Amino acid sequence: MSFLQTIQTFLTTATPPALFMKKTDRFQNEYIPLHEDKIQHICGFDGSLGYVIITPTQAALFVDGRYITQAKQQVDLSYWDVYLISDMNPKAFCKQQGISALLTDFWLITKAQADQWHHHDITLHPLDGYAFDSLIDLPQQTSFQPIWPYHISYAGKNFEEKYAPIQSLLGENESFLLCDSPSINWLLNIRGDDIPFNPLCNGYAVLSHHEKIKFFTDNPHFQHENCESHTTAHLIPYLSNTKTLYYYDPSQTPLALEKVIQNKKIKNNPCILPKALKNSTEQNMARLTHIKDAVALCEFFSWLDKTIKIRPVGELEIVDVLLTYRKAQSDFLDNSFATIAGIDANGAIIHYRPTEKTQKFSQNNSLLLLDSGGHYLGGTTDITRTLTLGLPTQEQKECFTRVLRGHIALSQCTFPLHTTGSQLDVLARQFLWQAQLDYHHGTGHGVGNCLMVHEGPQSISKSSSSESLLAGMIVSNEPGYYKEGAFGIRLENLVLVVEKQHGWMGFETLTLVPFQPQMILWAHLNTNEITWLKNYYDEIREKIKPRLSISAQSWLKTQDPNLHLPPTIPQQN
Amino acid sequence: MSFLQTIQTFLTTATPPALFMKKTDRFQNEYIPLHEDKIQHICGFDGSLGYVIITPTQAALFVDGRYITQAKQQVDLSYWDVYLISDMNPKAFCKQQGISALLTDFWLITKAQADQWHHHDITLHPLDGYAFDSLIDLPQQTSFQPIWPYHISYAGKNFEEKYAPIQSLLGENESFLLCDSPSINWLLNIRGDDIPFNPLCNGYAVLSHHEKIKFFTDNPHFQHENCESHTTAHLIPYLSNTKTLYYYDPSQTPLALEKVIQNKKIKNNPCILPKALKNSTEQNMARLTHIKDAVALCEFFSWLDKTIKIRPVGELEIVDVLLTYRKAQSDFLDNSFATIAGIDANGAIIHYRPTEKTQKFSQNNSLLLLDSGGHYLGGTTDITRTLTLGLPTQEQKECFTRVLRGHIALSQCTFPLHTTGSQLDVLARQFLWQAQLDYHHGTGHGVGNCLMVHEGPQSISKSSSSESLLAGMIVSNEPGYYKEGAFGIRLENLVLVVEKQHGWMGFETLTLVPFQPQMILWAHLNTNEITWLKNYYDEIREKIKPRLSISAQSWLKTQDPNLHLPPTIPQQN
Repeated sequence: MSFLQTIQTFLTTATPPALFMKKTDRFQNEYIPLHEDKIQHICGFDGSLGYVIITPTQAALFVDGRYITQAKQQVDLSYWDVYLISDMNPKAFCKQQGISALLTDFWLITKAQADQWHHHDITLHPLDGYAFDSLIDLPQQTSFQPIWPYHISYAGKNFEEKYAPIQSLLGENESFLLCDSPSINWLLNIRGDDIPFNPLCNGYAVLSHHEKIKFFTDNPHFQHENCESHTTAHLIPYLSNTKTLYYYDPSQTPLALEKVIQNKKIKNNPCILPKALKNSTEQNMARLTHIKDAVALCEFFSWLDKTIKIRPVGELEIVDVLLTYRKAQSDFLDNSFATIAGIDANGAIIHYRPTEKTQKFSQNNSLLLLDSGGHYLGGTTDITRTLTLGLPTQEQKECFTRVLRGHIALSQCTFPLHTTGSQLDVLARQFLWQAQLDYHHGTGHGVGNCLMVHEGPQSISKSSSSESLLAGMIVSNEPGYYKEGAFGIRLENLVLVVEKQHGWMGFETLTLVPFQPQMILWAHLNTNEITWLKNYYDEIREKIKPRLSISAQSWLKTQDPNLHLPPTIPQQN
Repeated sequence: MSFLQTIQTFLTTATPPALFMKKTDRFQNEYIPLHEDKIQHICGFDGSLGYVIITPTQAALFVDGRYITQAKQQVDLSYWDVYLISDMNPKAFCKQQGISALLTDFWLITKAQADQWHHHDITLHPLDGYAFDSLIDLPQQTSFQPIWPYHISYAGKNFEEKYAPIQSLLGENESFLLCDSPSINWLLNIRGDDIPFNPLCNGYAVLSHHEKIKFFTDNPHFQHENCESHTTAHLIPYLSNTKTLYYYDPSQTPLALEKVIQNKKIKNNPCILPKALKNSTEQNMARLTHIKDAVALCEFFSWLDKTIKIRPVGELEIVDVLLTYRKAQSDFLDNSFATIAGIDANGAIIHYRPTEKTQKFSQNNSLLLLDSGGHYLGGTTDITRTLTLGLPTQEQKECFTRVLRGHIALSQCTFPLHTTGSQLDVLARQFLWQAQLDYHHGTGHGVGNCLMVHEGPQSISKSSSSESLLAGMIVSNEPGYYKEGAFGIRLENLVLVVEKQHGWMGFETLTLVPFQPQMILWAHLNTNEITWLKNYYDEIREKIKPRLSISAQSWLKTQDPNLHLPPTIPQQN
């Protein structure tokens, strides 16, 4: 009997007879280890985002545009219906099917997400009593990687300095239930390897006015002089038995925990902002990290440039070789996400991840979109370059140039304090919009230091936001353009928000890798843009060139804008 | 005994012993007739925005930055404290003074505004029982101007066409209480002259599923075949005695009315969007109206150009002569707001309105900011031009050019459907921000057709908004820059939102008056911007020149960009 059949049989006697699952773990992580991936275990789908609804007679998987093809290949379509979320989301599905109540794992859904279901008049019932995991034979995690201290020379502030202002927000007999592992790792100056791509030790913390922090983790390696540690199994009994007033952030707190707290009040996670505002040590470490990462990228591009002249290179080899060059850099830990290497049509799949089945090989006129990043002690990188592996078409150059002009406009803008990312978003899109082109993703996301490659509260996107871009925040600048079935373009640097003068903000570019000059229609640029590109190249030559191998130095020279500028002197503006 | 003393004596025996007043009328109008202006009646302040709090021992007037100087001149400072709202608002004042309850006129405060007071834990009590108006000897309105039908050749749709889709939103035994006079005038295709600057007949309407519209107005001239009319005194008894379910818009409904409805539900005013989306007749009438208005402006600028060469010209004469030229145009009704004519430092006062006391006269190197508009049968205009009356300084030209580049960037942008004004706002500010300059007002407001010069729901500003810019909306494009004590610059056109291609939107400029070429640093413009200015001038020459007097034609010729372009050929981009 398949797991699906087992579940459907179980549901015939359950109340309600319908099950909802979301792809995440108890710590609301985006990247989860195999043993936590119940959806993959049940149906085979291994993408990072997916929802499942099962009834005794139905099995539905909901995925977004980047995963629809893959999902249909991975699940057994004679048992499963696969839906594109933008056409049919789980809530609309329930409405349509007359499902008004769902069983679900209250550890895998936050209080805020649960509220959304209730707003749609669908009630949620806990799965706890049913020993669901043993029903589907889910393997349990038995071994854990070590946890390591994150040294003050990278963190810039010790635990006490970080904790004092947060603890001062709590009155006597008040606690904060902190369910965000990145915040806890930041606060305790620790890192771990509990999950792929994120250097995290997972857990929940209780911060109190006068007591030591209580850290609930299943990683047996944890020990910290400022913490009392327990396994996560102790958390619910602990929360149920204290009368303290608990603050909690509903967007991060599992419903299972929110339910058992009697005396509670909503408060935003107080670590989010201080974590996002990098201190001067963190800023310097980030600058240093980006130099190392740029060296790895330049060495890789030099290798690629030579190799494609000899033989075709495939996407998986690109991923592997790039990792090799990153590994050669000091303090490198791991990729910060699964490298996206998309040749030609694969480049148009926004969250593409090459596999043996899907990978393409370089051809004479291929365009490669390469989006990758690394965690280093001291920083996290995320960079996208798009490059021709031969001769680009005029259309490719036009689109690339529009994307690049938007990237530059955002890079060099000045804006008053209290400006949000959504106010700046159009700067990156304006030249694409002129040609009635656009990209269907945000322009920028916050980035941590040796932490999550996606962190809040800042972002740059069409969605309105009340979060200002403040000095010390790191954010990506990544406009793109995707022509389905043909090619994809994305140009991504990380930038640091800086105060240029009192009350006036701007960006300092951290990423130091050239934009391929053959892709640029230089005559379409104005003087400002050309000057920006020249200065950027000069900075790269100054900071990166001395660290490169001889052959990579030769490659870097070919990227000099001065070799590509049109002969006429452009107008000043 | 002054009115203030009368009120303070009255308050010693009232419960609660504190009074709040807002400058508006029962129809929540911005411009109110003298007999409705209780605040002016009590303290002498005649600005368009003001709040008053009076207790037996205190009298406080709250105004914003544009009125602070004027207010301090107009009120008796031995009895009144005048506050700048940004330093101390009425709610903060109450907190500070320990005032937790206020008497107020429930006709002059909307349900939504009242909710704001309650959110600050201050309760409001009705003034009704106290015969307050007779206490302060307020004159009553005795005569009314006629109401006139707004012909289908201007409106484009007759009453039935407008009403059918709105009525279809109401079920049996459901009504909508419509408290927005502009919406009612739009719906009934009528106009009036009940208040200054807005061609409105004031009133409240009850729309029902199956009955005739009930219109409650005190204007005795009203008659309409599709309405049953009553005086406003009948409205409260009527609402109190029906059991119908009433929908109402809390942002427009006086608390006095909301209170007496038993069975009620919140709904946005259903006229707002169809009123904002001009139909093709309205669009054509708006284009025609802007041609007439441009003729008036060009004739005026030609007169000004000649006159300042002979003698100084004062701000009040500018206001008067401009009105004379507008009156010479067919179908002109009235100014659409009080003309702002600010020479030099007066130009830096954003909502300046010249008086005998404040006005300045043109000098050799004066800069004039002139913001004015007219109502015509068929359209409403609103235009700002800034011009030197002699030789501008380099600083003035630099600022003017930055404002102009922002104006042009917004004018010619393309954007996808579902884009809001707040997403585009930065386009108008970017060149000012580059020099760490900004303006502290919105970039654009919606404009009606022979209706309010400020109408929603659209706007272009820093504040986030969920209202998309949709085809048929008219909006202003008015970036500016103000150097306090020195000069003001604002460049304002009205633009029509148009669909350029399926799913892609842009603006059609309606206003057709040149930007003064002597103020432009032509070498700071790029080819796109120069081309835009040339095309704009060509359109003006084609559409306006044939309608001008010989002398205004000569003046127009001096505005040709080709006479001012630098000799070098600018770079294309």
